[in-house]
Parts: sequence; C-alpha cells; structure tokens
Amino acid sequence: MEQGGKTAARGWAARDASGLLSPYTFSRRVQGDGDVTIKVLFCGICHTDLHVIKNEWGNAMYPVVPGHEVVGVVTDVSPGVTKFKAGDMVGVGYFVDSCRACTSCGTGHENYCPRLVLASNGVDHDGATTKGGFSDVVVVSQDYVVRVPESLPPDGAAPLLCAGVTVYSPMVQYALNEPGKHLGVVGLGHMAVKFAKAFGMTVTVISSSLGKREEALDRLGANAFLVSHDAAQMKAAAGSMDGIIDTVSAGHQIVPLLELLKPMGQMVVVGAPSKPLELPAHAIIAGGKRVAGNGVGSIADCQAMLDFAGEHGIAADIELVGMDYVNTAIERLERNDVRYRFVVDVAGSHLDAIA
Amino acid sequence: MEQGGKTAARGWAARDASGLLSPYTFSRRVQGDGDVTIKVLFCGICHTDLHVIKNEWGNAMYPVVPGHEVVGVVTDVSPGVTKFKAGDMVGVGYFVDSCRACTSCGTGHENYCPRLVLASNGVDHDGATTKGGFSDVVVVSQDYVVRVPESLPPDGAAPLLCAGVTVYSPMVQYALNEPGKHLGVVGLGHMAVKFAKAFGMTVTVISSSLGKREEALDRLGANAFLVSHDAAQMKAAAGSMDGIIDTVSAGHQIVPLLELLKPMGQMVVVGAPSKPLELPAHAIIAGGKRVAGNGVGSIADCQAMLDFAGEHGIAADIELVGMDYVNTAIERLERNDVRYRFVVDVAGSHLDAIA
Repeated sequence: MEQGGKTAARGWAARDASGLLSPYTFSRRVQGDGDVTIKVLFCGICHTDLHVIKNEWGNAMYPVVPGHEVVGVVTDVSPGVTKFKAGDMVGVGYFVDSCRACTSCGTGHENYCPRLVLASNGVDHDGATTKGGFSDVVVVSQDYVVRVPESLPPDGAAPLLCAGVTVYSPMVQYALNEPGKHLGVVGLGHMAVKFAKAFGMTVTVISSSLGKREEALDRLGANAFLVSHDAAQMKAAAGSMDGIIDTVSAGHQIVPLLELLKPMGQMVVVGAPSKPLELPAHAIIAGGKRVAGNGVGSIADCQAMLDFAGEHGIAADIELVGMDYVNTAIERLERNDVRYRFVVDVAGSHLDAIA
Repeated sequence: MEQGGKTAARGWAARDASGLLSPYTFSRRVQGDGDVTIKVLFCGICHTDLHVIKNEWGNAMYPVVPGHEVVGVVTDVSPGVTKFKAGDMVGVGYFVDSCRACTSCGTGHENYCPRLVLASNGVDHDGATTKGGFSDVVVVSQDYVVRVPESLPPDGAAPLLCAGVTVYSPMVQYALNEPGKHLGVVGLGHMAVKFAKAFGMTVTVISSSLGKREEALDRLGANAFLVSHDAAQMKAAAGSMDGIIDTVSAGHQIVPLLELLKPMGQMVVVGAPSKPLELPAHAIIAGGKRVAGNGVGSIADCQAMLDFAGEHGIAADIELVGMDYVNTAIERLERNDVRYRFVVDVAGSHLDAIA
C-alpha cells in the first residue's frame, strides 16, 4: 500500500455536478507525527454529502470523495501518537483538523474555527483537497479522532459522528439535557429523540405529516406528537417546551414553533433551509426567547456523545448498503426515503469495480 | 385627595387613535396591603407609549394614561410595607405586577410572566385598566417598586426604568458585561453604550447614517463607529464582536450584523421592526451564533441596574419638558428628533389645564 511514503487509497468519487459516484484511486498523505492510519469499516451518508457532490453549494472540488461519518479500526500510528494504538475502534467526523491557534480552538470549540479542515472537499493545511470516508483508508491527526465504545455496533455508530453530535452538542450547551425538561423535535430528528429520552426528558415530535405519528410514538418512543399545521393542537401545547431542536432542511415557519417555547426557551436550528427563516422580533422579545444555530460539535463533545451513547446503548437506526448501491441510496436520500440513515459497508464492498 | 378610600389622580390621557393627550381626572385604587403611594416627579416618554396611544398595536383601552418610566417620592405606605418609607426616592417601570405563581415569577424572571400587569394600558388583577405615570400619583405594590440611588438625578434616572434595564438586563444575562469584551450597538442605543463603557468593554456603534459618527464617538464615548452600508468597513470588522445589542425599530438586514460576531457570539434584539427579520439558517449555523429577544428586565435586574448606574454616575441624556409640551414631544419622538429621551417634569407641570 505504500508508495513513496504515501498510502494508496481506493474510494468512490463524484467527478462532476451529476454527483454520480464511481471507483477512484488516489493516495493519502504520509502518516506524519501524531497521525493515525485507520482502515474504514463503515461510513454514513449525510445530506451534506449530497449537497456537495452535486455542487449545490458551488464549492465542489472534483473529484469529490464524500463521507464524514467514519467508523474504522486503527491499523498504524506514528511514534508521536499516545491516544490510540493499532486495533482500536475509532471514529472520524465532519472535520479532521483546525487552525489550533484561534480563540475557538483554544476554548475547545474548534468546530467553529474559521480555518476548519473538513473531512471531505475541504482544504488541508498543505493545500490538498481532503478526501472523505467513502474509501478504504484515512490518515488523520489523533487530535481529531474519537474512540468508539465497544458496546456500540460500529455501523450504527457511524451516523453519530455527524448527525449525533449535531444534536447532542447544543442539547448539552443549552442545558436541554435535564430530566423532566420538555424538548420539541421538529422533523424526525431521531437521534435528538433518542438522546432526549436517555436524558430523562419529555419529548414531543412536531411534524408537518400526520403519517409520522406512529413512527414517532411507537418506534422512537416520543411522548407526544404534534402536527405543525393543526392550529388547535399547536395552541394547546403553547408555552410548554423548554427547548426545540429544529432539524428541518425544507422551508418552514418558525413562529408557530417559537410559540411552543416557555418563556426564555431556546430553539436550536440545525437544518439549513435555502430560504431565510422569517423571524418577527416580537416573537422572541415577548418571552425573551432565543434562536441559536449549531454546527456539529467539538471533538470533546463528540467523544462525550459517543461515551454517553455507549452507556445508554444509543445508535442510529440505519439501512446498511454496499458501495455499489451508493448512487441509488443518494437518490433515495434526496426523497427522504430512508429510516433513518444510510451507512455504507465500506470494508465489505468491492471498491475498485462495480459488483 | 381621598374619596371613599381611593386616591384622586390627575393626569393626561389619550382619548382616541389621534393619540392627542389632554387633562384627565381619575382615581387610583385604595392603597392595599403591601402598596406604596408615590408622588410622581418625572416620567419618561418611550416609543411604546407612542405605539399604544395611537393604537398602532390595536390594543388601546381609552382613555390611555401613558408612562412607564416613573421616578417619584413615596408619600405613604400601607402597614405591610417593609421595603420603603415616606420620603424615599423610587422608580416604577414597565410593569406593576405579575401573577406571582408561574415559573417565570418563581425564578425571578417575572418580566416574562404571561399575566404581566403593565404600568399603562394593562389589566390589573381586579380587572381595571392600568393608568401610567403621566399623572401626579401612582399606587403600586412594593414588590414592583425599585429604589433610585441618591447619586442619580431623578429626571435623568427616569428612562433607566425601561430603556436602561432593557439593555442592561440582556448584557448581564449573556455575559456581555465583561471588561475587554467587544460590544456592537446598532442604532444609537445610548444607554447600551454607557453601560458597556462602564463595564470596561470596547464599544462600536453601528449606524446607517454617517452623520451620527461624531455623536457616537465624541458625545457617547464609543471606541469605533461603523456605517452599516459600507461593505468594506463591515468586512474589516467581521468576526470581531462578542455581542451586539440591536435597538433599531425600523426594518433592517441582520445578516451583516451577524457577520460582525465572533463564533458563538450573541445578538440581542430589543427593537421591534414591524416586518419580520430575515434570518438565513447558515448565518447562525456556521459560527454557532445566537439571536435572542429581550423584553425589559426583572425587578431584581432593574434594581441592580439602578445601583450600578448610581455607582458609575450613569443617567440618560434627556430633554426635560412640561406636560403642556407632551403632544409636541411625541410628534418629535416619532421623527427621532430627540437626544436621547424626553422626560416630562410631571410635578412641575399644571396637570389640570393647558398652560
């Protein structure tokens, strides 16, 4: 696998805005001081991958190897590595490095570093375009690698690295992790529901579709379900929630959601609709309410989330697919036709040829 | 002054949506257990008064006696009163009672009580419409009265009761009161600038009008001034502010303001434009930023603010007017033609006849 010190890698990449993925051979950087080499076992498919490979955000640097929800096994470590050893089950998430010098990095919030190095389609410190987890091997600094508890299934743990920490981190940051508190989850943010239940909270799922009711109550264990366009239901629940996690990426009204909050309640936006949200000042002034954005979480948050998930047996509900199914999976993801996350069985796939 | 136990009161009231104020005689409630009777000396004129007397919010209950920035002297107390005695200089702000039973009341955030009794044009526990401080006397529960430090000029202290606490309270709540931090103040929120300077912060005023530059820097002592539509200036200041207090009541774009915030920065909205603010999710997700609304402050906040103002010699810059000038003052306030707050010399005015 070694060629001039670099690690040969096989993955699947998109070559243009069609977003169609196909086999792609490339090389990883030389394993440097503090680096860990990881054999990829599983990699989740996230909506962000979809936006990037189709160049919907106008920033694709083809060929794009997507994937930032990686679970794998450490195969080699450089001499400077103290945290991990060969054989460890580890995870890599949305970013693989940061500037390590700014205030965000210095205060343990490196996820908000302005020079964050994304795991896929990012720019590494050496100027190279980063390649993600849809490949057999990754080389990552130990400081941006997390440990996956043995109690978790490695495939179901993969989506925790992005989808999981994205909801866990703001729940902890805004004290929406306390027993007895009432959390609203907008859209089927199934990880948010699972974490909230494990925190001992009361959880209400709010959805535009009545069809999701049984799923929310029976499968996810939510305590209640609200149809967002049912004014009577929404009015009856007004002022009842300590916080809301809004996972919806489609355009939607937030005023009816803000009305569900108690005074001084906190809404956290983790989905990113393409059109601006409409926020009338009076909707937040009257009750001293807050709307916060959240982007993934720090490495420390991610490790804490995984440890918590391990203790409480929380993994994502997934549909495991082979790499040869990935183009179909992305089509289905685009139609929200998955319960709840696709995960690619990378190590179990033929990466260099369509099966 | 006593008629059947009630206290006769003379004030000025608006009778219809013209908002025109004229002399009005009425009576205050019997001074009950825990109540304080206050001779009004000064009362500030707030934008809210303007909205209410012209029925712009559709909730005016005429005749409306406006005024919720009251400074006066205690003239009588009921036997149950322990906090105040005759002769004390006191203040009354935006609200004069609350339910005293809800979570907001129980946790010292009674300003967000859903059954808040506003000082003017509110509904008291007995069903009566409350009459504000544009009158010679008010009767208020001691629990909703604050002490005005002797070191403050009582006329310049009046606007602190609403305009002051409205910015002081969120500054403390969101830790935007720490030396060395950088606060942006949008619009000429002159109280926010004064408090921030007293906290030892760096203050930048952001305004749509270059004409306010000298006023901000020389008169208010701001450290810097930004013209909001100067893209180069705004870009140079991007990511530099810990927090922003947005006092603007006219419609405006908040994305350029959010870009001024550091990662995890906090914007506080205290002005209420009639049209919704446009909030693109990415503008708060990327840096984990927050937009909070704030409505005045608790009684404890108000007392802490007055004590702080007393220690640091902070009062509002005011134009003192007689009650016979109040209709003109309101016209000028509508055109923002005042530096910075009008205060009515209530005790020095002839209340029962136009001079």
